[in-house]
Amino acid sequence: MTPVVIRTKKRAPAAAMAALAEFGVSTTHEAMGRSGLMKPYMRPIYAGAQIAGGAVTVLAQPGDNWMIHVAIEQVQPGDVLVVACTTDNTDGMFGDLLATSLKARGGVGLVIDAGVRDVRILTQMGFPVWSRAISAKGTVKATPGSVNVPVVCAGALVHPGDVIVADDDGIVVVPRLDAEAVAEAGREREANEGEKRRRLASGELGLDMYAMREGLTKAGLVYRDDE
Amino acid sequence: MTPVVIRTKKRAPAAAMAALAEFGVSTTHEAMGRSGLMKPYMRPIYAGAQIAGGAVTVLAQPGDNWMIHVAIEQVQPGDVLVVACTTDNTDGMFGDLLATSLKARGGVGLVIDAGVRDVRILTQMGFPVWSRAISAKGTVKATPGSVNVPVVCAGALVHPGDVIVADDDGIVVVPRLDAEAVAEAGREREANEGEKRRRLASGELGLDMYAMREGLTKAGLVYRDDE
Amino acid sequence: MTPVVIRTKKRAPAAAMAALAEFGVSTTHEAMGRSGLMKPYMRPIYAGAQIAGGAVTVLAQPGDNWMIHVAIEQVQPGDVLVVACTTDNTDGMFGDLLATSLKARGGVGLVIDAGVRDVRILTQMGFPVWSRAISAKGTVKATPGSVNVPVVCAGALVHPGDVIVADDDGIVVVPRLDAEAVAEAGREREANEGEKRRRLASGELGLDMYAMREGLTKAGLVYRDDE
Amino acid sequence: MTPVVIRTKKRAPAAAMAALAEFGVSTTHEAMGRSGLMKPYMRPIYAGAQIAGGAVTVLAQPGDNWMIHVAIEQVQPGDVLVVACTTDNTDGMFGDLLATSLKARGGVGLVIDAGVRDVRILTQMGFPVWSRAISAKGTVKATPGSVNVPVVCAGALVHPGDVIVADDDGIVVVPRLDAEAVAEAGREREANEGEKRRRLASGELGLDMYAMREGLTKAGLVYRDDE
Amino acid sequence: MTPVVIRTKKRAPAAAMAALAEFGVSTTHEAMGRSGLMKPYMRPIYAGAQIAGGAVTVLAQPGDNWMIHVAIEQVQPGDVLVVACTTDNTDGMFGDLLATSLKARGGVGLVIDAGVRDVRILTQMGFPVWSRAISAKGTVKATPGSVNVPVVCAGALVHPGDVIVADDDGIVVVPRLDAEAVAEAGREREANEGEKRRRLASGELGLDMYAMREGLTKAGLVYRDDE
Amino acid sequence: MTPVVIRTKKRAPAAAMAALAEFGVSTTHEAMGRSGLMKPYMRPIYAGAQIAGGAVTVLAQPGDNWMIHVAIEQVQPGDVLVVACTTDNTDGMFGDLLATSLKARGGVGLVIDAGVRDVRILTQMGFPVWSRAISAKGTVKATPGSVNVPVVCAGALVHPGDVIVADDDGIVVVPRLDAEAVAEAGREREANEGEKRRRLASGELGLDMYAMREGLTKAGLVYRDDE
Repeated sequence: MTPVVIRTKKRAPAAAMAALAEFGVSTTHEAMGRSGLMKPYMRPIYAGAQIAGGAVTVLAQPGDNWMIHVAIEQVQPGDVLVVACTTDNTDGMFGDLLATSLKARGGVGLVIDAGVRDVRILTQMGFPVWSRAISAKGTVKATPGSVNVPVVCAGALVHPGDVIVADDDGIVVVPRLDAEAVAEAGREREANEGEKRRRLASGELGLDMYAMREGLTKAGLVYRDDE
Repeated sequence: MTPVVIRTKKRAPAAAMAALAEFGVSTTHEAMGRSGLMKPYMRPIYAGAQIAGGAVTVLAQPGDNWMIHVAIEQVQPGDVLVVACTTDNTDGMFGDLLATSLKARGGVGLVIDAGVRDVRILTQMGFPVWSRAISAKGTVKATPGSVNVPVVCAGALVHPGDVIVADDDGIVVVPRLDAEAVAEAGREREANEGEKRRRLASGELGLDMYAMREGLTKAGLVYRDDE
Repeated sequence: MTPVVIRTKKRAPAAAMAALAEFGVSTTHEAMGRSGLMKPYMRPIYAGAQIAGGAVTVLAQPGDNWMIHVAIEQVQPGDVLVVACTTDNTDGMFGDLLATSLKARGGVGLVIDAGVRDVRILTQMGFPVWSRAISAKGTVKATPGSVNVPVVCAGALVHPGDVIVADDDGIVVVPRLDAEAVAEAGREREANEGEKRRRLASGELGLDMYAMREGLTKAGLVYRDDE
Repeated sequence: MTPVVIRTKKRAPAAAMAALAEFGVSTTHEAMGRSGLMKPYMRPIYAGAQIAGGAVTVLAQPGDNWMIHVAIEQVQPGDVLVVACTTDNTDGMFGDLLATSLKARGGVGLVIDAGVRDVRILTQMGFPVWSRAISAKGTVKATPGSVNVPVVCAGALVHPGDVIVADDDGIVVVPRLDAEAVAEAGREREANEGEKRRRLASGELGLDMYAMREGLTKAGLVYRDDE
Repeated sequence: MTPVVIRTKKRAPAAAMAALAEFGVSTTHEAMGRSGLMKPYMRPIYAGAQIAGGAVTVLAQPGDNWMIHVAIEQVQPGDVLVVACTTDNTDGMFGDLLATSLKARGGVGLVIDAGVRDVRILTQMGFPVWSRAISAKGTVKATPGSVNVPVVCAGALVHPGDVIVADDDGIVVVPRLDAEAVAEAGREREANEGEKRRRLASGELGLDMYAMREGLTKAGLVYRDDE
Repeated sequence: MTPVVIRTKKRAPAAAMAALAEFGVSTTHEAMGRSGLMKPYMRPIYAGAQIAGGAVTVLAQPGDNWMIHVAIEQVQPGDVLVVACTTDNTDGMFGDLLATSLKARGGVGLVIDAGVRDVRILTQMGFPVWSRAISAKGTVKATPGSVNVPVVCAGALVHPGDVIVADDDGIVVVPRLDAEAVAEAGREREANEGEKRRRLASGELGLDMYAMREGLTKAGLVYRDDE
């Protein structure tokens, strides 16, 4: 592969991204027909962050963070940096200096299928990161990769400009052109949740609320008393 | 296996369960002769919860949470839901709606050898969960399993009505009929701990307090000075 | 191997250790030429601790914490206990009683390539531990190991008296005789960081600040506009 | 737990065990309603062995093979030794000397949720072993465990006298009293397989042979041509 | 996602596929600029198979092999079935009956990011399978997925009709439209290998043959004699 | 770390290495007092090889095999190349061309804590490799490491010139200066094994041959009949 940087300004509509940020990962994933998730080994470095933004993608070599510097130049305000590696790697490819730079360019978070370091300072900065590992392992700047090419990151396909939604439950990727439809579907799901929550809180069973009993009987479920 | 729900009201005495909740996992596990632990890959979604309760067991299919709805009807106040899977799975089989329902029925916690989602809301609700993964992955309701059959959950055998003790150190399973004896043994351990802690805090060595020196010498331990 | 305890008082200069504690793991690791790290599966039981101290090493049998009692007698104020295992193990070999004893002797932390328990109490005590697992699994005291021999702990070679630096990013081992030189190198790195951080925060790109553009072009990187 | 050896002669009928040995693991597991499997991390040390036999169970300490010596005395001709560990361990707890002894007593195989060594000689002896690891790591004989108590081995519950069926696909545990019924169910499955195999080999589709098309349509499956 | 089957006949030219089958995975991967590999956890069930063919892709639910039956109807002679799962799963979703059917339709192999069973019979049939696990775990037929949609399988993006090359080194995916160019690049690599092998076999060093010494010196490498 | 190549001719006596090759890993490891093993995730690419030789050590960057070329120049007839990585990596850093070169220089095997490729050809060549992974992933030649420095490889400390013993059970490292003593201790172990094997094969129990019964009773073991 020739190392390449694609310059692109294509993003999903800001209103759709804002809505998805509010819904969070589980609702967005359901609104997409239960697809688009990264693997659950990706974890936030601190609890409570919930973001959505356009993806600037990076394909990096293991233990080499040269392309992250290159990618930051391509970041627009509101973007999320998404770093995939050509091979499994846990080195600390991103730390507080890169976060300072990324934040200064308007970046709102990082998703990296590798390691991150300086996590105490990143937490103090309130700069959210989702990674496969925390590691102090330093990196080289020796071999170029690519920026804004499609990448597979933690098992999910990400195109530049796709919407990345991330929170304590994980990360979901919404194709750029689907963002508005998914936001609309998310809105409908949310509308129903409050009523469901109220009924369940009052003690009504899901078995009854979702009318599951007949289906279970047809599927062969039987009840017996403990002798 | 025919899918089946066993209705049972058998639980350990409430006083024994309350005592075990107070002792926590490590003491309870020692009081049982160092047995009954689930594997350490099971982790709480937030730090600080410490519970004990009667087990309502669920054997679920991977990626299918139908039986959790079924199980909630079998929950009595003070119970802990214990979900095992027929095969390794990390999908988010339990979220805030199910937690609302389980809590409304008096359930005090969830132990699930699979994934959980909506962890930020669960944390805000103060509803404790121990799981093998956090994942937004949605589930189907297609294939029945069983409720209140013996299950192997995270490497431990659990019968319905057994006492589940869970805290930051993990999860231990106390057979229902042993609960009072284990609580009594735990009480004796606790009684000794304060005195030991005081002596160690004053600088006394475990080597002396436990009279280990002779045994170590017999086992062949030698001391040498660094040249 | 004959089980042996080596008595040694050799430590790095206190000032060097204090400096390394302040720099933390990532800076220290870079100052060593990017070496000396333990594997990233080692994680702190709570966030925010940052320490440095002289290593008292333990080579223990799996599931046997006899030698930790032996090692505590060899601890000097400011030391860090480093426990390696003869084989991979996650049992809870260290808990609040041992922490009380270790703290009473002046120990400032524990690094253990195995499990730890009583983590809630350890957190309340403010006694920092880095481990591969949290587990309530109790241990025996049946087979001796060694104290203050060189050990491989989580992939890093540790000699007694080496400096152990640990924080939220992981753990790095500084050879005792290198401590002052590494501290000096760390000081130089730190001196440059403030200026870099200020420039990056103002929006200057790493590409320009580090003059990377020419190297990238030579390495074959090309830019293209999204069609 | 008091370390204990239970002497028991209870085994399933030999004819049922012979039938299960012939059917192998996948058929037996299906005949049990898709239950009873050990986890797939258990692997044979060489390909091609296929056995069934009564379980002599061992609960051993990590890195300690004392109880395997004890268990061999309890072995009857045709038995399979099943070794579980009180905690995850990969040490080489079993080698060619123990295999020689076990074989001399009539044992036909070993299932061990830990490590095995001398695998080249074991292969030459034609003594089949299923294990979680191959490791030369030697063991101690320091702490007793138990023989012929129920154990959880690789995620499956095994009672002494249960039938262990093992082949290249893994290991399945048949409760002793179910062995004849499972053998009968296996026989029925096998009877149908030949006809199915013949039809599929002739090019008939499973879609038609199992009449799946209507169900798929009901479940919402649609067909589209590639544009 | 609506479950869908895409009917497509698009394949790479047969000659290109035949060439890639001959080159094998490592050469093909290099000829693609070191890209396109699946993760190394994918392993063949027996050594020595080396194939290339057009991908028929399947996106299946965990523990559910319904869609494999559906996919077999879409197989053309020379194709390779590629099965991805909506979530990590190791169940034995494919066995000898499905292999018989797939082979009867002209399928030449299976790549499955899940488990496979009946591996002894598959080996006897000479039907090659690459999988993440071997497991007897049976599956349900309850929830539809999709056939011939783009899937991420073991970390690699696969479009229907892409060329799958698989051997003992793993699996590489060649985009359909790149197949001829990659085959040509592979041919050039192969042409050079014989000469290189001959020179290296005669004792010439790679250091000299590839003229690496100057680059190493520039990169700072120094030589020292052991004192 | 400055990248460095240490030139050294120091090896253990050939007779000792030959003896260790004959004893194999398990016996050698026992003869060393049960120490020196690499982790069991290291596996041979084919069964049956058993070697011993002097270590030429390599510390390589992840995904970069430049230093392997450098190291081959330092190989003496009978040596084993031992490759450690600065961080966990599974890339295919070694293939048939390097094997041809290493073999031409007299190298007898490779131990690599990373990946290997061309395994079918390596098997045909009869060139034994022990690795943590098999992977076609190609590597760069961008960043130097070191040759013949002490390395930690798969958890074991290796000095250049140490004896590497490897077979189907794994890999053990014998310090160069200990080789003769370990060979002698191995000889004594072997001398006893034949007699033990004969007695066990005749049906004598380990319990009696090793006189374990009294120790077991003292340790609290009790016998009970199954009711």
